[in-house]
Amino acid sequence: MARLDELLKMIEFEKCKGLIPAVVQEKVTKNVLMVGYMNKESLTKTIETGLVTYYSRSKDKVWTKGEESGNYQKVDEILVDCDKDSLLITVDQVGGAACHKGYDSCFYRKIDDGKIIMLEDKERMFDPAKVYNKEIKEDSCDKE
Amino acid sequence: MARLDELLKMIEFEKCKGLIPAVVQEKVTKNVLMVGYMNKESLTKTIETGLVTYYSRSKDKVWTKGEESGNYQKVDEILVDCDKDSLLITVDQVGGAACHKGYDSCFYRKIDDGKIIMLEDKERMFDPAKVYNKEIKEDSCDKE
Repeated sequence: MARLDELLKMIEFEKCKGLIPAVVQEKVTKNVLMVGYMNKESLTKTIETGLVTYYSRSKDKVWTKGEESGNYQKVDEILVDCDKDSLLITVDQVGGAACHKGYDSCFYRKIDDGKIIMLEDKERMFDPAKVYNKEIKEDSCDKE
Repeated sequence: MARLDELLKMIEFEKCKGLIPAVVQEKVTKNVLMVGYMNKESLTKTIETGLVTYYSRSKDKVWTKGEESGNYQKVDEILVDCDKDSLLITVDQVGGAACHKGYDSCFYRKIDDGKIIMLEDKERMFDPAKVYNKEIKEDSCDKE
């Protein structure tokens, strides 16, 4: 698709070693749900399918959020920043939870007096062990 | 400060080549203002001063947002994601505008039918030439 190729050239993938951050925000609550990375292929797939699709650095592959959990992110709008090297995607979050740990947002903790503590109002919306049917790695650079 | 050193060790800087993305969100409107990068030094400075401080990839130095324009970002909360490799910082945006192009947010354009177009309701809040007293580079990977 000629027009999509032109668009991809305008986004600064090359300057950023092929990967740019994509911030995903729930369109109604305006809660920031997560930050992932996109390469040209994942942005193309996001535009073509209307489902947010990232590039996993640890797995070195493109993946659609929700392909395992069912918690897809349906694209509302894709915004581009001034430098064209980061994206803000507003979405309808299927199932209400974006985080593989079961929370609505991946940002469920804050820095407080030199420690990382839970936000007071956070409760799990699902049990990760049941949804993903496997142990969730405590620290992976990608979200699924 | 021993406690800050411990905190910095818990954030996944090493796994991410020293730099993690920091999403900045206005605390009242919940508008996402910009995405920058932080290294250990800039996060330390952000915590110690209460003013959001980034690492500029193009200039290879730490810089405090607003040091030139006066449009500082006063920290409300610093949230950490599930993988501890990205930050969400809610702020009070001094002057109401975060973008060096004069807009409230760096995300003033969207992808629409294969093109990048202005959001309908966006107007400049200041004239960049007057605030920065220099020509603004059209494409830099950093915001000031």
